[in-house]
Amino acid sequence: MRVVRYREDGRPRAGVLDGHRLHPVADEALTPGDVARARSTTPGATGTPEELLAPARPSTVFGMARNTGPADRAAAPRAFLKAAASVSGPGAAIPIPADIGRVDAEAEVAAVIGTPLWHVRPRDVELLGLTVSLDVTARQAQQDDPRWTEAKSRRGFTPLGPWIEPEAAPTDAAIPLARNGATIAEGSTADLARGVTESVAYLSTLVELRPGDVVLTGAPATFGAIAPGDVVTADVAGVGTLTNPVVAAEDTAHREVDHA
Amino acid sequence: MRVVRYREDGRPRAGVLDGHRLHPVADEALTPGDVARARSTTPGATGTPEELLAPARPSTVFGMARNTGPADRAAAPRAFLKAAASVSGPGAAIPIPADIGRVDAEAEVAAVIGTPLWHVRPRDVELLGLTVSLDVTARQAQQDDPRWTEAKSRRGFTPLGPWIEPEAAPTDAAIPLARNGATIAEGSTADLARGVTESVAYLSTLVELRPGDVVLTGAPATFGAIAPGDVVTADVAGVGTLTNPVVAAEDTAHREVDHA
Repeated sequence: MRVVRYREDGRPRAGVLDGHRLHPVADEALTPGDVARARSTTPGATGTPEELLAPARPSTVFGMARNTGPADRAAAPRAFLKAAASVSGPGAAIPIPADIGRVDAEAEVAAVIGTPLWHVRPRDVELLGLTVSLDVTARQAQQDDPRWTEAKSRRGFTPLGPWIEPEAAPTDAAIPLARNGATIAEGSTADLARGVTESVAYLSTLVELRPGDVVLTGAPATFGAIAPGDVVTADVAGVGTLTNPVVAAEDTAHREVDHA
Repeated sequence: MRVVRYREDGRPRAGVLDGHRLHPVADEALTPGDVARARSTTPGATGTPEELLAPARPSTVFGMARNTGPADRAAAPRAFLKAAASVSGPGAAIPIPADIGRVDAEAEVAAVIGTPLWHVRPRDVELLGLTVSLDVTARQAQQDDPRWTEAKSRRGFTPLGPWIEPEAAPTDAAIPLARNGATIAEGSTADLARGVTESVAYLSTLVELRPGDVVLTGAPATFGAIAPGDVVTADVAGVGTLTNPVVAAEDTAHREVDHA
C-alpha cells in the first residue's frame, strides 16, 4: 500500500494505492490508522492517478545536516529548516535562477510524520511512512549564508514523492542519483550517521513534530550538479523513484507553479 | 478592527474584533477581504474572547537576521526560519530547558501574510496585518549551530499576539520590552535596516509567501535575558502588547501545550 496525493477534476485529493486499486481518503491530517482503514472502508477504483502531487503537505520541513559517516556520528546532531512552500511534487520543474552558481540536487530518504511526536525515543517513532526527496541546494549561497535560507528554501527546491511507502524500513537501502539517465552518485541509508528513527527522535526533543511534517535525513554522498535542461532522478530502494526536470527560473518566475 | 483567534467551547475559532463586538469568521485561509466583509455579513456579539490563541497559523515562520542599522542596510538581506510548531499564543508559557545557558527574548513586529505573494515589489505588498512577536533565542546554541535550529525552533519559542492589527503602518513605532514590569530594552521600527514591506518583498523573491505565514522583522536592540519565573512583555506601539510567562521546561515537557 502506498499513500498518494493526486489531482482529479482539478482538485487535490489523497488516496491509498493498493496494487492498482485506489482508495480515496480524507486529505487532512492523514494518520497511520487512516491508511490501514482505507482498504476496508472504501471500495476503491482500478487505475492509478494521472498526476501525482507531493505526497505530504508539511508545515515544517526539517533537514539533517552533517549526517554522513563516523565523524558526524561523533558530533552533535544538527538540523536545518526549509520553507514549506519550497515543496513540489514528482515531475515538477526545479527552477534555477540565473547567476546563482552551482546548484546540486541531493537524493535523500524523507520521513513523513503521521502522529504528533514529542520527546519520543527512537524505538517509539511511528511514521506515516517514507518518501524520496531532492534537497536542492545552491552551493555559493550556502557558503555566503550560514542559515542556508537562500541556498535551500527557494521555490521548487524540495521535490517530494512519488508516494509515501508506509512499510519501508531502509537500514541499508541503495540511493542512486541519476542525471539524464546516467547514475552520477550512489550511496546507502546505511551510510547515514543517524538513521531515520534516530533523526526523528532527536528533532522531537526540540519541538513537536506534526502530521504531514517531513524530515530529510541527509545525503550519503548522493549529490550532483544540475542545470536547466537536465532531468534528475532519485531512487531509494524499497521506497520509490522521484524524477524532476530542471528549468531556468525565468521560465516560471511569474507563472503559477502548482505546489498543492 | 483586529483579527483574533480564540478558544470557545474548547475549539479554536477566528474572529474580527470591532471595538467590543466580535464577528466570527471562517478560520481557514483568512484574507484581507474576509476581514473587511466580517463586519457587514455577521451580526457579531458583544464581549471579548476569554482565551486568545496565536492569531496566525503559519506554515513557514521567517525571521530577518542582521536587520538593524546602516551596516546591515549595506549588506545583503538575510533570513532564517523557525519551526511552525514553535509558535504559541499570548499568555502561553515559554519553556526553558535546564543547562541551555542564556536565553533572550527579542521583541519584534511581525507581518502576517494574507494573500499569496510571489516576486512582489515593496509597494505592492498587501498583508493581513501586523502582530507582536517574541523571538526567543538560546545564545549558546546560536553560537554552536550556524543554522540556529536548536537556538530558535524549540517548543514555545515563538509567542505571537495578541491579535493582528490590519491597519498599522509602523514606520517609527516604539518597541519596549519589559521583564517583570520593568522596561529592559527599547527600540523603534525606524531602526530596522529593512522595514516590514521591504523584508516581505525580499522573501517573496525566494519562495511564495502564503496566507498565514509570518515574517519576524528583527529586533532593533529590543532583547534581554529571561529565566523561569519571569514574565516578559513586548509592546509595539499601534499594534498591541504581548505578555508571556517563562517556566522551566521540566514543567511542560510531557504535557500537552496547546499550539492551536
